[in-house]
Amino acid sequence: MINVTQSFLPPLEEYTQILQKSWDKKWITNRGELILELEEKLKQFLGINFITITTNGTLPLQIAIKALELSGEIITTPFSYVASSSVISWENCTPVYVDIHPEYLTIDETKIEEKITDKTSAILATHVFGNPCHIVEIEKIAKKHNLKVIYDAAHCFGVQYNGESIFNFGDVSTCSFHATKIFHTGEGGCMITKDQNLHEKLFYHHNFGHNGPEAFHGIGINGKTSELQAALGLAVFNHLDAIFEGRKIAVEAYNQFLDFSRIQKLKIRENTVWNYHYYPVIFETEEILLKVKEALNKENIFPRRYFYPSLNTIKYLNGEKMPISESISQRILCLPLFAELPPETVATLSKLINQNL
Amino acid sequence: MINVTQSFLPPLEEYTQILQKSWDKKWITNRGELILELEEKLKQFLGINFITITTNGTLPLQIAIKALELSGEIITTPFSYVASSSVISWENCTPVYVDIHPEYLTIDETKIEEKITDKTSAILATHVFGNPCHIVEIEKIAKKHNLKVIYDAAHCFGVQYNGESIFNFGDVSTCSFHATKIFHTGEGGCMITKDQNLHEKLFYHHNFGHNGPEAFHGIGINGKTSELQAALGLAVFNHLDAIFEGRKIAVEAYNQFLDFSRIQKLKIRENTVWNYHYYPVIFETEEILLKVKEALNKENIFPRRYFYPSLNTIKYLNGEKMPISESISQRILCLPLFAELPPETVATLSKLINQNL
Repeated sequence: MINVTQSFLPPLEEYTQILQKSWDKKWITNRGELILELEEKLKQFLGINFITITTNGTLPLQIAIKALELSGEIITTPFSYVASSSVISWENCTPVYVDIHPEYLTIDETKIEEKITDKTSAILATHVFGNPCHIVEIEKIAKKHNLKVIYDAAHCFGVQYNGESIFNFGDVSTCSFHATKIFHTGEGGCMITKDQNLHEKLFYHHNFGHNGPEAFHGIGINGKTSELQAALGLAVFNHLDAIFEGRKIAVEAYNQFLDFSRIQKLKIRENTVWNYHYYPVIFETEEILLKVKEALNKENIFPRRYFYPSLNTIKYLNGEKMPISESISQRILCLPLFAELPPETVATLSKLINQNL
Repeated sequence: MINVTQSFLPPLEEYTQILQKSWDKKWITNRGELILELEEKLKQFLGINFITITTNGTLPLQIAIKALELSGEIITTPFSYVASSSVISWENCTPVYVDIHPEYLTIDETKIEEKITDKTSAILATHVFGNPCHIVEIEKIAKKHNLKVIYDAAHCFGVQYNGESIFNFGDVSTCSFHATKIFHTGEGGCMITKDQNLHEKLFYHHNFGHNGPEAFHGIGINGKTSELQAALGLAVFNHLDAIFEGRKIAVEAYNQFLDFSRIQKLKIRENTVWNYHYYPVIFETEEILLKVKEALNKENIFPRRYFYPSLNTIKYLNGEKMPISESISQRILCLPLFAELPPETVATLSKLINQNL
């Protein structure tokens, strides 16, 4: 069986060896030495100033909304995983959708301003499949209208834009370290900002607001990461070169073998160092997608309709019609992509796809 | 050094052996086989019908508030860990405090009704140190005024009340599986209800609202537990008898050696099978507490002021004065208590306390 993703797992012995330190200290959570070590390593590797690792990739979005004191309407993209919209509703704000660019698949920056009202407090945009939004234009709009910017950068581990980490843009960027991601801690995520005051606020929020065992800076919940998760992160970290390389080889194989006369692929934004995180393909019609999917499933290959459905169509999110996002959602399929996927398998798989177009 | 708590850790090999299954399947989160196995074991052990294990013990409180569709005012106790109040504020409701019983230390059920207004939607009460609230009376009040009841049962693993699991009371009960708890998964927690429909709602909320890979039941966030956490839970589960026994021995040693002519201890509610989770002692004055604490610290022994401060006094929670809770908070100290604490150490420690009264 080949799934759309496969978690990269270091040898269990490597994980255990790292975890031995926590066992020796009998210290399994609450900012143990492993989580501190991992945060330092990630800061250096990514080229960022501040990071707080969290227990998953959704909590940092909730925490960012609280830390930035957002209310009212938040402009967002309908083409994203459901988390980026559900956190808006969960935190008592209203998602206001703006359609996407048909090739980059990120929020269409030229359509943002028409959706700004006096209730708008922020833009929450997703760098889709590791592909950056039009950051320069979004920052301009945010500045002009005094809006905060959160980037859901769940897919962006290792992505660079204009020569620096993509996590350095926006007021807050969040990432996911879920088991299916390039770098992962099983479940996990993080929040990143360049602003030290905001970093401290985010940090307090993720640890019950504590600023001492008996004192509180302000409100907070529990976003803490256990040493079990941190140890896995440290073990995976040691294999990052091989992970990126394996994914690059698979992506290049798809680029070589797929028939692009009838398949649209993701257009990576200019000035981007991409991370080979997903391999989405867009078919001419939903019928072709379903035909291809069925043919692959028959061979025990399981691509994923991702992102599907377009979030504006989910009942409780209550969005307006978004023609481009809805059309892309119906026609896009993420093909299997992970570090250990051999190019020979990509060749076979591509042939099967080409035959069913 | 002796801390107030010490995580019980099974031999690392036992943990690794369980985790090997996840490694073999390359399945590290998203309801893997270990979490399912753990939920089944806990249901049987505790005598409950439904459980959802979550990534920590605070998220289930947030999820319960959403699932029960609470709004306005929630009546709660000022004598609890900060999480039980901060979730109320975080979820856009207002905590309304009711003072506590001076011996049981749980919310004073006789003072609840006077705080009910037309904005009150629920009672969120804490079974303090594993000691049950006056459940019978609270249920009566809730029924009369059409209020929901959430019990923060973070300390209650294994507690029975009136012959059944304490988790079976209230609309929802939550527990913590934090590393310092009797049973733990490093970080972790759970939500329990007897109502199947409500169980399903809680479950959806903890998994992004998914009811299929491409369909949604409603709004949700991420409360999922990784297999890393589940494996630790399964490993700890196998040692539960020894854990309870070790704690019982330490508690009985305190009961034997402390000078109760000048120390008040926790009064356990009638019809309760208690779980020996904490050993709080209440001194006559805060001065004595501080003197005892200093004497213990000098010997590298670290009890904890818990719960302190009384939550109504925390600025952002904005509560009225609560004389009993404030007085108890200033005078209560949780003494070291964990499965591996030898009775000889308890004897030494008790002597030191008695000398400083």
